[in-house]
Amino acid sequence: MNNKKHKIKIAYIGGGSQNWAINLFKDLALCPYLKGEILLYDIDYPLAQRNVEKAGIIFHHSQSKTKFQVRAVKKLEDALKNANYVVISIFPGPIEMMASDLDIPKKYGIFQSVGDTTGPGGIMRALRSVPIYVDFAHKIVKYCPDSWVINYTNPMTLCTSTLYAAEPDIKAFGCCHEVFGTQYKLAKLVNKYLNVPQPDRKEIHLDIAGVNHFTFATEAKWNGIDLFPIIKQHISQKKFFSNRTSAALKRKKNGEWFTSDGLIAYDFFTRFGVLGAAGDRHLAEFVPWYLKSEKEIHRWGVVLTPSSYRIKSYYSARSKKNLLKTFKINELKHTSEEGVNQIMALLGIKNLDTNVNIPNKGQLADLPLGAVLETNAQFRKDSLKPVASKPLPTMLNSLVRHIIEVQKSTLKAAITRDKNLAFQAFLNDPLVNISTDKAWKMFNEMLEATKDMLPGWKI
Amino acid sequence: MNNKKHKIKIAYIGGGSQNWAINLFKDLALCPYLKGEILLYDIDYPLAQRNVEKAGIIFHHSQSKTKFQVRAVKKLEDALKNANYVVISIFPGPIEMMASDLDIPKKYGIFQSVGDTTGPGGIMRALRSVPIYVDFAHKIVKYCPDSWVINYTNPMTLCTSTLYAAEPDIKAFGCCHEVFGTQYKLAKLVNKYLNVPQPDRKEIHLDIAGVNHFTFATEAKWNGIDLFPIIKQHISQKKFFSNRTSAALKRKKNGEWFTSDGLIAYDFFTRFGVLGAAGDRHLAEFVPWYLKSEKEIHRWGVVLTPSSYRIKSYYSARSKKNLLKTFKINELKHTSEEGVNQIMALLGIKNLDTNVNIPNKGQLADLPLGAVLETNAQFRKDSLKPVASKPLPTMLNSLVRHIIEVQKSTLKAAITRDKNLAFQAFLNDPLVNISTDKAWKMFNEMLEATKDMLPGWKI
Amino acid sequence: MNNKKHKIKIAYIGGGSQNWAINLFKDLALCPYLKGEILLYDIDYPLAQRNVEKAGIIFHHSQSKTKFQVRAVKKLEDALKNANYVVISIFPGPIEMMASDLDIPKKYGIFQSVGDTTGPGGIMRALRSVPIYVDFAHKIVKYCPDSWVINYTNPMTLCTSTLYAAEPDIKAFGCCHEVFGTQYKLAKLVNKYLNVPQPDRKEIHLDIAGVNHFTFATEAKWNGIDLFPIIKQHISQKKFFSNRTSAALKRKKNGEWFTSDGLIAYDFFTRFGVLGAAGDRHLAEFVPWYLKSEKEIHRWGVVLTPSSYRIKSYYSARSKKNLLKTFKINELKHTSEEGVNQIMALLGIKNLDTNVNIPNKGQLADLPLGAVLETNAQFRKDSLKPVASKPLPTMLNSLVRHIIEVQKSTLKAAITRDKNLAFQAFLNDPLVNISTDKAWKMFNEMLEATKDMLPGWKI
Amino acid sequence: MNNKKHKIKIAYIGGGSQNWAINLFKDLALCPYLKGEILLYDIDYPLAQRNVEKAGIIFHHSQSKTKFQVRAVKKLEDALKNANYVVISIFPGPIEMMASDLDIPKKYGIFQSVGDTTGPGGIMRALRSVPIYVDFAHKIVKYCPDSWVINYTNPMTLCTSTLYAAEPDIKAFGCCHEVFGTQYKLAKLVNKYLNVPQPDRKEIHLDIAGVNHFTFATEAKWNGIDLFPIIKQHISQKKFFSNRTSAALKRKKNGEWFTSDGLIAYDFFTRFGVLGAAGDRHLAEFVPWYLKSEKEIHRWGVVLTPSSYRIKSYYSARSKKNLLKTFKINELKHTSEEGVNQIMALLGIKNLDTNVNIPNKGQLADLPLGAVLETNAQFRKDSLKPVASKPLPTMLNSLVRHIIEVQKSTLKAAITRDKNLAFQAFLNDPLVNISTDKAWKMFNEMLEATKDMLPGWKI
Repeated sequence: MNNKKHKIKIAYIGGGSQNWAINLFKDLALCPYLKGEILLYDIDYPLAQRNVEKAGIIFHHSQSKTKFQVRAVKKLEDALKNANYVVISIFPGPIEMMASDLDIPKKYGIFQSVGDTTGPGGIMRALRSVPIYVDFAHKIVKYCPDSWVINYTNPMTLCTSTLYAAEPDIKAFGCCHEVFGTQYKLAKLVNKYLNVPQPDRKEIHLDIAGVNHFTFATEAKWNGIDLFPIIKQHISQKKFFSNRTSAALKRKKNGEWFTSDGLIAYDFFTRFGVLGAAGDRHLAEFVPWYLKSEKEIHRWGVVLTPSSYRIKSYYSARSKKNLLKTFKINELKHTSEEGVNQIMALLGIKNLDTNVNIPNKGQLADLPLGAVLETNAQFRKDSLKPVASKPLPTMLNSLVRHIIEVQKSTLKAAITRDKNLAFQAFLNDPLVNISTDKAWKMFNEMLEATKDMLPGWKI
Repeated sequence: MNNKKHKIKIAYIGGGSQNWAINLFKDLALCPYLKGEILLYDIDYPLAQRNVEKAGIIFHHSQSKTKFQVRAVKKLEDALKNANYVVISIFPGPIEMMASDLDIPKKYGIFQSVGDTTGPGGIMRALRSVPIYVDFAHKIVKYCPDSWVINYTNPMTLCTSTLYAAEPDIKAFGCCHEVFGTQYKLAKLVNKYLNVPQPDRKEIHLDIAGVNHFTFATEAKWNGIDLFPIIKQHISQKKFFSNRTSAALKRKKNGEWFTSDGLIAYDFFTRFGVLGAAGDRHLAEFVPWYLKSEKEIHRWGVVLTPSSYRIKSYYSARSKKNLLKTFKINELKHTSEEGVNQIMALLGIKNLDTNVNIPNKGQLADLPLGAVLETNAQFRKDSLKPVASKPLPTMLNSLVRHIIEVQKSTLKAAITRDKNLAFQAFLNDPLVNISTDKAWKMFNEMLEATKDMLPGWKI
Repeated sequence: MNNKKHKIKIAYIGGGSQNWAINLFKDLALCPYLKGEILLYDIDYPLAQRNVEKAGIIFHHSQSKTKFQVRAVKKLEDALKNANYVVISIFPGPIEMMASDLDIPKKYGIFQSVGDTTGPGGIMRALRSVPIYVDFAHKIVKYCPDSWVINYTNPMTLCTSTLYAAEPDIKAFGCCHEVFGTQYKLAKLVNKYLNVPQPDRKEIHLDIAGVNHFTFATEAKWNGIDLFPIIKQHISQKKFFSNRTSAALKRKKNGEWFTSDGLIAYDFFTRFGVLGAAGDRHLAEFVPWYLKSEKEIHRWGVVLTPSSYRIKSYYSARSKKNLLKTFKINELKHTSEEGVNQIMALLGIKNLDTNVNIPNKGQLADLPLGAVLETNAQFRKDSLKPVASKPLPTMLNSLVRHIIEVQKSTLKAAITRDKNLAFQAFLNDPLVNISTDKAWKMFNEMLEATKDMLPGWKI
Repeated sequence: MNNKKHKIKIAYIGGGSQNWAINLFKDLALCPYLKGEILLYDIDYPLAQRNVEKAGIIFHHSQSKTKFQVRAVKKLEDALKNANYVVISIFPGPIEMMASDLDIPKKYGIFQSVGDTTGPGGIMRALRSVPIYVDFAHKIVKYCPDSWVINYTNPMTLCTSTLYAAEPDIKAFGCCHEVFGTQYKLAKLVNKYLNVPQPDRKEIHLDIAGVNHFTFATEAKWNGIDLFPIIKQHISQKKFFSNRTSAALKRKKNGEWFTSDGLIAYDFFTRFGVLGAAGDRHLAEFVPWYLKSEKEIHRWGVVLTPSSYRIKSYYSARSKKNLLKTFKINELKHTSEEGVNQIMALLGIKNLDTNVNIPNKGQLADLPLGAVLETNAQFRKDSLKPVASKPLPTMLNSLVRHIIEVQKSTLKAAITRDKNLAFQAFLNDPLVNISTDKAWKMFNEMLEATKDMLPGWKI
C-alpha cells in the first residue's frame, strides 16, 4: 500500500438510501487511500439531497481521513458519466407492493419470513426489478463502460443476473453481509471452545457455496483448525434444538423482527453436513420444511416480519420530521460492509478474498454455467475472479439447482413479459405447496397488486 | 415375418404373479411365432406351482396358437440358466410393509395416492427392493449374460436403475402401461373431435419424456394430425376443471380406487403445455400441489387407495379358497401389455417403436446421462435404442431432474446402507413438506416398520 | 400404404443440377404415391430449362408411374412459395475456385483427395457457401416455413449447419449416399462369408456415428448377425493391407478418380475397432496420416482427383453440344438416392429409418449439442428424430470433436467475416501440418483466389 | 507471520536428484520459519547419500537460517512414515530409454525438441512412469495420508494424474517453473516499454490456462496495466519474426540446447491472441506446425536437444569423479523454485497465489472435469483451491482438449496395459503425422526399447 490518495468517481443509484449509502460514506471517510466524488441519483430526489447533507456531516467529522464531494443529480445519466464505480441499492416499487407480496400469500396459507428474495413475494419483487435493472445495465454500459458495479439490492441474485443478461460484458457483482454474520457466530464459538480471545470475523475462513441467502459453508477453519467438529460439539448440547416458540412469541411481542437463534442454519448442518451461511429468516424461505405455518416457524425461534412494520419504517424514514432531525455522529466507526475494501482491492491497494455474487464460470462445476452464485472470489487490481468451491452435498446441490432454474425462468419471463412462464416459475417455488388452481388465483391477485410496476405486461 | 416358430426360454422371477404372469401366458399363447419354455421362480413356491396349472389351461385353450412348457423351480439359478428372456414382477416385502408405507406418513399429514413409486412410501419400497435387485442382476449376468431383462416391478425406475448399477452391461428395460392409457384416452378424443372411428391406441403417436409415472407427452399426433389443438378444445369446455369432490366420494364409497377423470394430466397441459402421460394417482405424487389433504385430492376426482384394500386383495389372491377355485378362460384375448411384442421385435420378427424405461444415452440431453428415463425407443433384432425426445418445458424439466437426483441418492443410500443419505433423499421428496424434525421421526418409524427387509442397516 | 396419390410441391434450388436433379426425377417417376409440381431455380437459368426438358422425357417414359409438372423459374422466391419440400444441390462458386482450392495447397505440400468437405479446400468452399445458405434459410422460412429442406450440397455439414444457424426453427437435413456404399460392400461380404445370396444394401443395419464423410459404423448387423467378426476374418487375409501403389497408378492413368479399395475404411477398423463408413477419398482428408504426399496416398490405392478433371467435366456438362444432345433413357430404374423415400416417410406413407445429417439433440451425447452430426434417425409422418448412437471409441470421438470445433469456428468466421478466426480454424484443420507463417501465406492466397465469392470480407 | 519455527517432515522421492533436491535444500536453508527433517529415498541409494552430504554443507553454510536433519533411507516406506510433505522428482527409466524416445521417432521423420512431455517420446515416458506413480500413490496414502505431495517429474500432467487416478483423495499438485520464465520475460518488457526499473517476476500477474508445457497467459498485467498492448508493440518490430536459422545453427554448434528466442510463444500470441507461457521447446511439441523437420524448427531459433547430450550429462552427474569432487557454495541464494513458498502457505505462514497443476474442478469450465490442468490457484493454510481462469480462445481450447483426451487414454492404457488403446493415443498425438502402418511399426519399436519398464505388458 502506498499512501497517495486514489481519486475515484462513484455513482450511487438509489442515492437516497438510509442505510447502505450512509454506511458507504462512513467507510469511505475512514479510508485514507481514496478521495473524489460521489453522485447520488434517486427517483426521490429530496431524499438524495438529504443524504448530501449527511455526507457533509460525515466527511467533515473530526475522525474523517479523507474528503469526497457529494452531490445529488436529477438524471441517472449525470451520475453515471465517467463513474469508476457504480453502487446500486434501490427499493423496487412502493412499499405497499412489498405488503401485498407478504399479505396475499398469507391468505392462501403461504408464510414468508422476509419475502424479498424467493417465495411468491421474492418472485413478484423480481418481476418489478428486472425491467429497472435492464435499464441500469444499458445506461451503465453507455456512460461508464469500464466501471465496476456493486449491487446491494434484493432479490440480489436476480438483480445481478439481469445486469449480465442485458449487458454480458458488464463488470458487476452482488454483495451481501449474511455470510459475515456466520463468521461472527463462529468467531464466538472459537472463543468458547478453543479458549482463545474471540478472533475478528475475517479470520474465520469459510468455503461458501450456493445462491444468495441460500448459501452454505462447506468448510470452516480458523487458523487452519477445522471448525466442523466444534460445531458438532456445540449443537450436541442437550436441548440445543428444543422448541423455541416462547422465545419467538416474545420477539413477536417486542417487535424484534430480525432476531433468531440460528437454529435453522444448524439444522442444515445436522441434516446435510454443511452450515447454513445466511440468517434463518432467509434460509427458511428456500425449502418447504420450516414455514408451513406461523406456529411452525416459531418452533425454530423465527418470527415473520409483518408488512405493517415494513410500511411504518418506510414512511418513518421519509417523514418530514425525521428528515429535519439533525443527523449526528459521535464516533465514526467502520461498518460491517465490505464495499470500500472491494474498491481498494480493485484499485490494487490491498488484495481481498471474500464471498461475492457473480456468474458461474466453473466455481461450482455441478451448477449451470452463467448462473449468478455466491462463492469465494479474489478481488485484485481491476480483476475479480471466483475461486473453485467445494461442491455442495448432492441433495442440497439439487435444491440449489432447482432454485437457479426457477430464477432463470423468472428472469426470462420478466424480460419477455411471459405470464405463463412466470407462473410456471412461481408454481415451482419451494414455498408454493398449494393446489395449482389456487396458486393461479393467488398469482393473479399478486400481479394485479403490483401491475403499476409491470409495464408492457398483459395481466 | 416368416412363419417358423422361434424357440425361446423365459425365466420368470416372481412367477407366482397373479396378474403379469397370466397376461404374459395369454399373449404368448396368441403368438404363432414363438414356442419354448417358461420357468417360474417365486419365493412363494406354491403360488408359482398354481401358475403352472393356469398356464396349462391357457396353452391348452382351443384358441392358443402355440405351446410353452411351464415349470416352477425352487432356485433362482435353475430358472435363469440359459434363459433368453428374464421377466421380473415381484412384490418387495410383506404387504404389511406397504401398509406402513401409507399409514405412517398419513399420521404426519402426508397423503399418498399409490405409494409405490415416489413419496415416503416409494422411497421405503425402493430401499427394500434395491438389495433384491442387486442380487438379481449378479445372477442374471452369471447364468444368462446374453438375456434381455424385462422389469414390471415398482418402483420401476429404481428397480431398473439397480440392475444397471450392479451390472452395467446388463440388457434390461422397464415396461409400464400408463402411457397406453393416455393413447387410449386420445384415441377417444380423435373419434369425438375428428369424426372418425376410434383408432387403435397404437395409432396415437406420442413423444414421451420423463421418468416412469411422471411422464409427459410433448407431442401427440394421429395420422400426422397434431392433437394438441384438440386437447385444448376439449379442456376449454365449461366446467371441465370443476370440483370433483362428489365423484371422488362416490368412488371412495364404492371402492373404485383406480378410477379418476384424468384432470391432473390435463392440468399439467394447462400449466406447462404438455400432457401428463400417466394416471392422475401417479402424477399427483411427484409434485407438492395436489395431495395436501384428502379433501384436496378429492377436488381432482382422485381417491387414496387405502392400505386395508391392499392387504385384503393381497391375501385374497393367496387364500386357499381362491387357489383351489377353478381358473377359467372363455375367450383368449390379447392383453394390453407389450412384453410379447417386445420379444418378437428383439427376435427380429417385427420391429416395434414404443416407450420404455432405460438409461439416458442422450434421449433427453438436458437430464443426467445414465439416469433411467421413460422415452420412446426402437426395438429391433437384438437391439434396443432410445430415440431423442423433444425436451420438456424448462420448469418441468427441473422438477424431473430433482426427482432423478432424489432417486440417485436413494439408490446410493440403499446400496451403501447410508441412513443419512437416505434421509436427505427422503427430505427432498416433493411430498415431504413437513418440519425436518418431524420428517426425521417419521423416517425412523418407517425404517423400523420395514427393517426386516433392510439387512445390514444400522437403524 | 394407401394408394391415393399425395400432391406435393417441390422447390429445387440448383435446379440445373446434372446429377441430383435427374436422379430425383427418376425416383419420383417410379413412385406411384406422389404427384404435383417441381419448380427449378438455378443461377444458370438455361441449365434449369434444360432439366425441364429432361424431366419431360422421364415423366413421359412408359415406365413412369406418375406425372409431375416441372418448370424453371428465374427468381428463388417463385420456386419457394408454398413449397412442401425444398431440395438444394448447388455448386458454390465458379469451378475455377475449386481448382484453386486444390492447387494452392498442393504448392505448399498439402494434398487433398477431394477438397470439398474439409482440408484447406473444404474450408474455403465453406466460406463461400455460408452466405449463400444464410440467404436460402431466410427465404425458405419466409416463403415456405413449413417445408422440409433436403440438402445435397457439400460441405454437407457446414451447409446444413448454416441453415440452422440462420433459422433455428428450419426443418432441414443433409443427405449423403456414402453410407450406402458401406452397406453395399458389407452385403457382398455377407454373400461371401455366410453363403447366402447377396442381400439388398438396406438389409445391412449400421449404427452410424460421426460427421458427414467422417462417419463410422459402430455396429453392423445383417438379420441380427454381427458382421464385425466377418470383417475381421476378411481383413485378416494375407496381404489384405499390402501396398496398392501400382493399382493407384493405373487408376491415375485411366482417370478412374473415384475408385479405391476401401483400405482406409478397413484401416480404421484395425486401429479403432469401428468401420469407416465413407469412401477412402473422404476419410483420408480428416486425419494427418494418409495424405502426406501423393506417393503416400497411392500406397492405399487412392488417387487424387485433379483440378483439371473437375474443370473439364464441369464445362463438358454445360457445353452447347452436350446440352443439345438428346437425353435418352432406356429403362427407368431406381437410383441409389433416398430423397423420395424420405419424402414418402414424412408424408406418412411408409416409415423410414436411415442415416441423416441433423443437429445433435443427444444422439451422440459425448459431442456438442447442436452440432450437425450424421447418425441414424427415424423419418415418420412430418417428423424426423435422431436415434441415440453407440458412442465412438474415445480417441476417434476426440478427433470428431476437434473437427466439429473447426467447423463451428469456420461457420462463425464466415458469418461474421472474421479473418483471424477463419485462419485459426484453417490452421487447426488436420491436413494443415505446415509452419504457421507458411499457412498464413497459403491462406491469403486462397482467400485472394476466392474473394469474388466473399462479399463484405476485408482480405 | 509469526517467527516461531514450524517443525515439518519432508519425504523426498528421487532423493538423489542433482537439481531439484539441491534447490529445495537451499530454499529451505534460507527460510527462517521452518525446521525439521528430510528423508531421501532413491533407487540409487549412493546418490541419495551424496545428497545428504551436500545438504550438510548447505544447512551449515553461514547464511543458512535454519537446520534440517537430512538422512538417506533404503525403503520408500521409511521415508514416507508421518511425512507432512512428499516431494517427488524422479527419472523414469534408464537414460538409454530417453535416447530411444528421441531416436526411433527421428528415423520415421518425427522430430522432438524435448521428448519428455508429449509426442511419441512423452507417451513412452508416461507408459513407464504410470506404474511407478501408482505405487507411490498407494504408499503415500498408506504411510502419510495427510501429507501434501509436490511433483516435479515429467510428464508432469500424467504423473500428477496418476496419483489422483490411483488415490482420488490424495492431496497432490504438480509444479513447473516454465511460467516463471514468461513472467521474467514480461518483466523485461515492462522495463523496456514503460520506462520503469525491471520489476520482480512475481509482480507480473498472468492468468494461466492449459496443460503443463502447453500453457497460455490469457491475461498479463503489471500493477494493473494491461501488458498485451505492449506485447503487440514489441512483436510488431520489423523482422521480429524473421528466420532464425543462423542463430539456431550457432546454438547447435555450441551445445546451447535450452536457449531460444521465445518466437513460438509470440507466434501463438499473433495467431490466437494469447501468449504461450512455456518455453518454445515445449510449446512446439504440442502442435504439428513447427517440428516438421530440423530445418523447420531452426527457422524459429529452436534446436533439438540430442540424445547424446542427455546420456552424457546423465552419466557425468553420476561419475565417481564428480561424486567425489567437493561441493562448494559461496553465496547461498534463493532459487527460482516455489516449493518452499508453497509449503509456507500450506502451513498458514504466508498466503501464496501462483500457477499449479491440479485436477479441474471448474477452473476451466470448457475442459473435462478431473483432467489435470495448469491454472492459477490459492495456497492457503492446509488448502489449495484453483481460481477460475479466463477461457482459452475456442480453437486453442479444442487443441488442449484433444491433448487431454490423448493423455486420458494414455493413462488408461498404462494402467490396464492395453496396447491397442495406447496406440490409439499414440496415433492421435499431434506430432504423429505419418501413415498408420508406419506409426504402428514405430510404436512397436519404441515399446520394445522400453519394455523392461513395462511389467505385465504383452508387447
